[in-house]
Amino acid sequence: MREIYLDNNATTMIDPEVFNLMQPFLQQTYGNPNSLHRFGQATHKALNEALNKLYDGLGASELDDIIVTSCATESINWVMKGIYFDEILNKEKNEIITSSVEHPAVLASLNFLEKKLGVKVTYLPVNSEGTCNVEDLKDAISDKTALVNIMWANNETGMIFPIKECASIAHEHNALFHTDATQAVGKIRVNFKEVGVDYASFSAHKFHGPKGVGGLYIRQGLKLTSLLHGGEHMGGRRSGTLNVAGIVGMAEALRLANLMLNYENSHIRKLRDKLEDEILKIDDVSVIGNRDNRVPNTILASIKGVEGEAMLWDLNKNGIAASTGSACASEALESNPIMEAIGAAPDLAHTALRLSLSRFNTEDEIDFAAEQIKKAANRLREISSTYAYSPKEM
Amino acid sequence: MREIYLDNNATTMIDPEVFNLMQPFLQQTYGNPNSLHRFGQATHKALNEALNKLYDGLGASELDDIIVTSCATESINWVMKGIYFDEILNKEKNEIITSSVEHPAVLASLNFLEKKLGVKVTYLPVNSEGTCNVEDLKDAISDKTALVNIMWANNETGMIFPIKECASIAHEHNALFHTDATQAVGKIRVNFKEVGVDYASFSAHKFHGPKGVGGLYIRQGLKLTSLLHGGEHMGGRRSGTLNVAGIVGMAEALRLANLMLNYENSHIRKLRDKLEDEILKIDDVSVIGNRDNRVPNTILASIKGVEGEAMLWDLNKNGIAASTGSACASEALESNPIMEAIGAAPDLAHTALRLSLSRFNTEDEIDFAAEQIKKAANRLREISSTYAYSPKEM
Repeated sequence: MREIYLDNNATTMIDPEVFNLMQPFLQQTYGNPNSLHRFGQATHKALNEALNKLYDGLGASELDDIIVTSCATESINWVMKGIYFDEILNKEKNEIITSSVEHPAVLASLNFLEKKLGVKVTYLPVNSEGTCNVEDLKDAISDKTALVNIMWANNETGMIFPIKECASIAHEHNALFHTDATQAVGKIRVNFKEVGVDYASFSAHKFHGPKGVGGLYIRQGLKLTSLLHGGEHMGGRRSGTLNVAGIVGMAEALRLANLMLNYENSHIRKLRDKLEDEILKIDDVSVIGNRDNRVPNTILASIKGVEGEAMLWDLNKNGIAASTGSACASEALESNPIMEAIGAAPDLAHTALRLSLSRFNTEDEIDFAAEQIKKAANRLREISSTYAYSPKEM
Repeated sequence: MREIYLDNNATTMIDPEVFNLMQPFLQQTYGNPNSLHRFGQATHKALNEALNKLYDGLGASELDDIIVTSCATESINWVMKGIYFDEILNKEKNEIITSSVEHPAVLASLNFLEKKLGVKVTYLPVNSEGTCNVEDLKDAISDKTALVNIMWANNETGMIFPIKECASIAHEHNALFHTDATQAVGKIRVNFKEVGVDYASFSAHKFHGPKGVGGLYIRQGLKLTSLLHGGEHMGGRRSGTLNVAGIVGMAEALRLANLMLNYENSHIRKLRDKLEDEILKIDDVSVIGNRDNRVPNTILASIKGVEGEAMLWDLNKNGIAASTGSACASEALESNPIMEAIGAAPDLAHTALRLSLSRFNTEDEIDFAAEQIKKAANRLREISSTYAYSPKEM
């Protein structure tokens, strides 16, 4: 049976070229970069090249810091808790403002700060497109605001948030700004300096790099209390023996993804739009958010009367991998939080189907997937107790 | 030139068998384990096998938790900060007791708790062997003690600490007990349940597993406020997409290391002792700690009149990798902290040479290394301004 992977917002395949570059550091070149001997020093050239690729690929200046972490979840926890220690504990600021549709790493970190440490957290609503209104941030922000946190692109819908404007509003009020760029890096052009963020998190495995490695951008001169204290790695900001293979892999994955951005924005966008158009031919289907304001690879569809998990099951039987939303909670049969946040009718909350493409998908795969989604929707509606089924030629 | 790696306490080569097992998860089997489709589900068998290997290899009961982290540094930071939130903040306990020769991850975390959050940290002295006296812990502990932290084996000397007794004393006083087992796992038999620790940290790359993955043992029923909040990975205790290749690699590395423990304790110990005996034939050389109470692979020697870095340089020119102590600070020309802690004369503090073997070393390599160390000691003493050189036939 053919296998078609349309769950690239959950995780991606390591690009074979990335693996080739990592391989020596998983085998012969195994020294600790901090060691003075040749086994350690042999890693330095590759590490320097990797850091250069990260700085170039993310639009960081030489004076900014890009700290390698174990994943975006670590980077996000680091920012949320670091801000608490630096800006809230023993200071006059006491508030963090966030969008209400962030990744669980943000929401759970903030819940901890709220419940355990008494931080005031303000959740901005989202509009029917699933993004924030800049006006709501302007209304909410005050001189008590320590941090504004808005994701660059949403993991479920792919919708792009107005982070440049939000960062600017934060700075006007002397607040810091963090963006979770996990779903933006590698999919659209990302330049941290240009958009003016103070901190930005990302994970390699979302752009065809390895799992277990990610990063945090810290703008020039900004402090941030460490999450991992210890030895003098990463300029004393993040301790732990460097994962050389992971760093080399992440950097090359970023370089390749950026090289492919035009392809992403033309070819992958075209395939995504084709798939979306086909799905929209099904009755009673909606897709969240204007596709021009989405990363080019993502569709979050709602197929009325079709349980998302049942659809996944059908697709999986036919070799197609999709999801109902964030993989971080997908083993639980929960309703999709974005569907709830945008105020979708309750009977739609369990109907989400997320399809996320990559540069490794072909048009043939997309055609096959569209066909299977239509068939599954028909079949599942036929046996549905809640959906009034009227078959339609497709 | 031949290359001889004697710096296995800094990091190790990935065992080729470990790499073979990891490889599929770096290439074709790339799904997110949390995904419902076959790409995700295809990782489950290997992950379950890996967890079983970890439980078996570390002596954990089914009801204990072994949480995969990015490294021991993360595990250690998690325990130190988790204990603060669980046991100290808003409670009557306010003290952590630790040995004074812990890894920088412990010392820097505790320094943070001390300076930023007002936790009382008590540092137990070490004796001339470089370990703690149980009596000192008995004297220091009180009903204000939240946590006792004692490493299982020291990274620089290899000396084994009396953690079973220390854990027992901690429990008699209603304190929790954490051990940094990073230098013990894979070198001596480790059974967390049997020694009665509450928390234990370790890193795969110290026992021929990959970098960027480690673990934390949490005894049955114990809570610990998360360090990485987020999705529902690892039973909700540690978030972040699972690094499948890393987990599979760590578990297999542990299985192999445990299989080789007899070899470690006979053959590697014999090689280590031979190397140590040869080094001790040099005048004015001492080795820290009784070799019977050390992990089988480690020597920390002090060669009077010979700067550690100069020795490393000489050895490196001849293809031999060693260190002056912890790699976590080895790019700075600092004196060896263990030498200071045991009260060595100040002129010895910069003379440390750490040699740490692995099962991949051969007797031939050891003979060559012993020869080169002797030659280097002679040469460096000859040009030393402080050491009165009297050449000796060797």
